[in-house]
Amino acid sequence: MPHPARKLVIVTEDVLLNKIVKLIESSGASGYTVVAASGKGSRNVRSSGHPSRSDTVTNIKIEVLTSSREMAIELSDTIAEKYFGDFAGIAYLCDVEVLHAHSF
Amino acid sequence: MPHPARKLVIVTEDVLLNKIVKLIESSGASGYTVVAASGKGSRNVRSSGHPSRSDTVTNIKIEVLTSSREMAIELSDTIAEKYFGDFAGIAYLCDVEVLHAHSF
Amino acid sequence: MPHPARKLVIVTEDVLLNKIVKLIESSGASGYTVVAASGKGSRNVRSSGHPSRSDTVTNIKIEVLTSSREMAIELSDTIAEKYFGDFAGIAYLCDVEVLHAHSF
Repeated sequence: MPHPARKLVIVTEDVLLNKIVKLIESSGASGYTVVAASGKGSRNVRSSGHPSRSDTVTNIKIEVLTSSREMAIELSDTIAEKYFGDFAGIAYLCDVEVLHAHSF
Repeated sequence: MPHPARKLVIVTEDVLLNKIVKLIESSGASGYTVVAASGKGSRNVRSSGHPSRSDTVTNIKIEVLTSSREMAIELSDTIAEKYFGDFAGIAYLCDVEVLHAHSF
Repeated sequence: MPHPARKLVIVTEDVLLNKIVKLIESSGASGYTVVAASGKGSRNVRSSGHPSRSDTVTNIKIEVLTSSREMAIELSDTIAEKYFGDFAGIAYLCDVEVLHAHSF
């Protein structure tokens, strides 16, 4: 039953959550996990151009399991093309092995 | 000193936290990390059968480092057998390399 | 554009956040992500020597993407040498593939 999968991780600004979730749902992924995060990018300003009040800004970390690398890359490309020109964000992949899945 | 290990990640409903923690402790794992998460599974309802009020439900993400793949699979099997029939959940493994460990 | 990288994950006591962030910034890493976490280490006491009131203590999970394994290990060694004698902590590496990066 264990089978290989790809975990796509997207860390970006919290204002994008709903828009990215819609793209994930359109991609055919069966679920996602969202965690609140803070952090600092290399520019130390929000992508809005306003400097952040503190060194630490509010971000979200979204994780999506996909069956293929191609699906993860396509989803990541869509998100980056739409939003990473104007907002801070990073997208990366990890190899994982799914052991059990029920309703995610 | 760096040595390979397995990270078992379990994302499931928050109501299961205490029960899963007990299973982790019984497994011989030396520690675990818990992060609050939200997300959406493929059914868009909680496993209780009640539809969620919003698209986003409250979950927990639990991470356990284990020395062997067998230990991670055994723990995952136990959790899935007990709870994933009635509750939404996913369990997956990543390969990691532990660099330093003190009291976790 | 996809390129391999290393993700250094540090889970430790929340009191160390600012100090570790300074070390990350000195290391030349371009950004980091911080998530609030709880958990339990093998000693079931905080490294301060005081037993925790509950089984679950407050931790932070910090993730840093680095271009090389050497940079991640050097950063991890510095953090462990300074703090993991006195505080609970773990540091581990995962291989990842960065797909897009904008300002992190």
